[in-house]
Amino acid sequence: MSTPAGVSKDITPKLLDHGLTVVDLSPDFRLKDPEQYKIWYGFEHPAPDLLGKAVYGLPELHREELRNAKLVANPGCNATAAILSLVPAVESGLIDLEHIAVDVKVGSSEAGMKPSIGTHHPERANVMRPYEATGHRHVAEVEQELKAIAGREVRVALVPHAVGAVRGALATSHVWLADGSVDEMALWKAYAKRYGNEPFVRIVRGRYPDPKYVVGSNFTDVGLAVEQRLGRVALFAAIDNLMKGAAGQAVQCMNVMLGIDERTGLSYPPLRPV
Amino acid sequence: MSTPAGVSKDITPKLLDHGLTVVDLSPDFRLKDPEQYKIWYGFEHPAPDLLGKAVYGLPELHREELRNAKLVANPGCNATAAILSLVPAVESGLIDLEHIAVDVKVGSSEAGMKPSIGTHHPERANVMRPYEATGHRHVAEVEQELKAIAGREVRVALVPHAVGAVRGALATSHVWLADGSVDEMALWKAYAKRYGNEPFVRIVRGRYPDPKYVVGSNFTDVGLAVEQRLGRVALFAAIDNLMKGAAGQAVQCMNVMLGIDERTGLSYPPLRPV
Amino acid sequence: MSTPAGVSKDITPKLLDHGLTVVDLSPDFRLKDPEQYKIWYGFEHPAPDLLGKAVYGLPELHREELRNAKLVANPGCNATAAILSLVPAVESGLIDLEHIAVDVKVGSSEAGMKPSIGTHHPERANVMRPYEATGHRHVAEVEQELKAIAGREVRVALVPHAVGAVRGALATSHVWLADGSVDEMALWKAYAKRYGNEPFVRIVRGRYPDPKYVVGSNFTDVGLAVEQRLGRVALFAAIDNLMKGAAGQAVQCMNVMLGIDERTGLSYPPLRPV
Amino acid sequence: MSTPAGVSKDITPKLLDHGLTVVDLSPDFRLKDPEQYKIWYGFEHPAPDLLGKAVYGLPELHREELRNAKLVANPGCNATAAILSLVPAVESGLIDLEHIAVDVKVGSSEAGMKPSIGTHHPERANVMRPYEATGHRHVAEVEQELKAIAGREVRVALVPHAVGAVRGALATSHVWLADGSVDEMALWKAYAKRYGNEPFVRIVRGRYPDPKYVVGSNFTDVGLAVEQRLGRVALFAAIDNLMKGAAGQAVQCMNVMLGIDERTGLSYPPLRPV
Repeated sequence: MSTPAGVSKDITPKLLDHGLTVVDLSPDFRLKDPEQYKIWYGFEHPAPDLLGKAVYGLPELHREELRNAKLVANPGCNATAAILSLVPAVESGLIDLEHIAVDVKVGSSEAGMKPSIGTHHPERANVMRPYEATGHRHVAEVEQELKAIAGREVRVALVPHAVGAVRGALATSHVWLADGSVDEMALWKAYAKRYGNEPFVRIVRGRYPDPKYVVGSNFTDVGLAVEQRLGRVALFAAIDNLMKGAAGQAVQCMNVMLGIDERTGLSYPPLRPV
Repeated sequence: MSTPAGVSKDITPKLLDHGLTVVDLSPDFRLKDPEQYKIWYGFEHPAPDLLGKAVYGLPELHREELRNAKLVANPGCNATAAILSLVPAVESGLIDLEHIAVDVKVGSSEAGMKPSIGTHHPERANVMRPYEATGHRHVAEVEQELKAIAGREVRVALVPHAVGAVRGALATSHVWLADGSVDEMALWKAYAKRYGNEPFVRIVRGRYPDPKYVVGSNFTDVGLAVEQRLGRVALFAAIDNLMKGAAGQAVQCMNVMLGIDERTGLSYPPLRPV
Repeated sequence: MSTPAGVSKDITPKLLDHGLTVVDLSPDFRLKDPEQYKIWYGFEHPAPDLLGKAVYGLPELHREELRNAKLVANPGCNATAAILSLVPAVESGLIDLEHIAVDVKVGSSEAGMKPSIGTHHPERANVMRPYEATGHRHVAEVEQELKAIAGREVRVALVPHAVGAVRGALATSHVWLADGSVDEMALWKAYAKRYGNEPFVRIVRGRYPDPKYVVGSNFTDVGLAVEQRLGRVALFAAIDNLMKGAAGQAVQCMNVMLGIDERTGLSYPPLRPV
Repeated sequence: MSTPAGVSKDITPKLLDHGLTVVDLSPDFRLKDPEQYKIWYGFEHPAPDLLGKAVYGLPELHREELRNAKLVANPGCNATAAILSLVPAVESGLIDLEHIAVDVKVGSSEAGMKPSIGTHHPERANVMRPYEATGHRHVAEVEQELKAIAGREVRVALVPHAVGAVRGALATSHVWLADGSVDEMALWKAYAKRYGNEPFVRIVRGRYPDPKYVVGSNFTDVGLAVEQRLGRVALFAAIDNLMKGAAGQAVQCMNVMLGIDERTGLSYPPLRPV
């Protein structure tokens, strides 16, 4: 569940002026480039100087920066799943960065608590409903983070879909191998290297990631499938959108900021079946 | 719901010998090339000569051939959605045929009536579960049909996902434009030209296709979204997997074969909300 | 889905004055006694003279009156299920009229199309939520109709529950036998006698009624279970709340009023599975 | 989820002989009277002497006996909800013990992990399906426990219904007041007195109990609604069938047996929304 855009941009500078430390669940400080706020969110950012000081709150990418952060911009839930599915593949240089299509599936709780016709149960139950098939705002932060890893522009085609569940988000990233050749083991090693020591990332083999296995927990399950014939790969990341995709991640960031065990208050195992 | 592979291949020749006309819901006569049965289904086809005579039962592609057909191979449900989402785009030459990723979402009824742990309600409810992320058998028929249209090999990366619904299948085909330039109107025209007179294809604008709007009917809803910035397109097709994806399509084929109104017995409107 | 109370009471007299025939889906003309509108709905009825002329639109009880009706008050969905579960048992004199508890389960579409926090998908999905556990307004019409059959006052304890479905309503009426003795066959005969010729009531044995078997149709499935040890009975009626519980029943009434085949336009079979 | 009947009756005596302490999740030691096993379960009990020593594992009723127990018979999930909804009302003498109808709604996880056509997702999703409408085995333990409280025979009409959810059980007990008069406050006081100090029972006012509010926790939510006009009452108890209805309750019993804080290992709050 994302906090709506624009609710934090004016109040956050005041909170910081009072000496407070802020973990912001809105998107107002996620992007580094103030110009991007005009493009994606349609407003002139009132505190562009803070954008450089804000840390994007994905501990798997920015743990060291988080330790001294005063302002953390907690990632969007779709962005969290998309980025975590892709990071090791992008970092390894094994995939074609020109063709990345991220197909996201999400539960209804992502829409927040405000009722609307789109979340009205008779309308929302059992859907397979694409939304914001172009211009989904989380794309901006996904591209920003992947660019930092790749050292070059990365373009991401992302289409979210509302599906029949309350909790959970699954990113399926469809990518092609950079040189057409297939080295599945190299890919797995890239994931193991990047995530092997992460307390909240589980690398899943033998089955594919599915949010049903992480509901109620802060875990991200990642996995992949390589199709030899086509030189293409499906990369998966499954999260509970209200935990790793929102409040759980905020607590994880806070723990890093406070210098305490990153898992504090986050030891809930997934609740299964649910 | 697909009939399991292998159940028809031996009995169908006998039925034809008795002078019967057959609409086969199994995959046993969908592929033209007998070699493909070894690759995708793991058996040597016992009646390879019939493969050339069988007509792939998608009236939108093979209506004329169906009129005189004695043996019709009814398409798979995922294949129906995938193909119908892509045909006009492929035919128009507007898209890059090297990078096609089809992300399919399906309801539980696709698995047929045989209980298993995978369809056990506590396990199946609320999932976003990828399956057969590589080597899904419907890929063979999708590539066969698209190749016939493109006049060249077409490779398709297809990943199906079980999601929380009983009925419905949605294909989201992620593609890129052939020359990077964007002519959205040309794409819409290609769909209008191809499907404008089809009794069971509805072109949807203003919202995206969602199987929830076709449940209980034989309709396919198609639509698309063009992202100018990336030169990429999302193509959608939504069906009821038990109607246009199975029995409804079989009836439609039968009607064509019998020379009667193609819509006979298929006039059910979608049931909404459900 | 019930039309809200009060929307028809003022306009209906005008429609009738213009010579129109009305099938009203609101509760405004269901009750015969104007005093009851003060008690249950909190308003003084503006057209009490019309209450005597209005026919309660349950063809199974009022078919003859419907033939000449100018104003039909279409029953509430919970009331339809409750009444149809009980009528033959009450009529037969076999059950204790002092202790009738009707436990109703309903899908989310019963709440109509207006979004609210109660129908917001994350809140509404998977509930087993009692509501209006006392004073549910449909009780007034249930008691009115049963009184007419019994020839004496009948009191009904009715508790509706929202459960996890879009469509469907099931009434489980818990009753005790009048003299403690058990004659199961007499009960079945009462149901067969009352409903044997009804085009839209199916008597179900071998399984219990479940709305899942009637979704999309105008059928009511009724059944019962007798517990010898306790001299108690469970009486069931399952409907599609949007068909027999609302629009389907209105069409059925209209057909009777028009003197045409009662099944006209209602020949949809249930959609299964859904 | 109940462990199937008969799996423990032979092995448990051996475990006890080895000096082990047993919390049995099967029904094999829940009933005190060996004759009842013939009636309800169809077998001759092989260790009738143990039935008197076994403690029915509902801490709210048998906490003191549990402290020294060697063999605990963990209650069934439907029985837990039914009993906890009724205990204070029965104990208070305020209700008519001749007419008690318990209508239970349960999620699919109650059926255990073995797939069957009844739990096959396309068949199980969205149901409102009565089952074992007469002779449900949990009735035996419900009547046994209520009899001990009332000091006389109590007969319970219980009908369980499968509804659309994975987790949760709600008992709605429909009862009438003993003398027809209504003293709602006396009823609430009876519940407050009985459950006020219980660590896992929450008395709910302002809304009705709904398992959606306890999923993932060991809590039982109880509440009630009094209808003045009829002198009747609806009593509710909502549990997570896999926690208070199974494993959670077993842990609670174990804690009591071990003399440690009863809440140990059970501090999970409910997971909402889910």
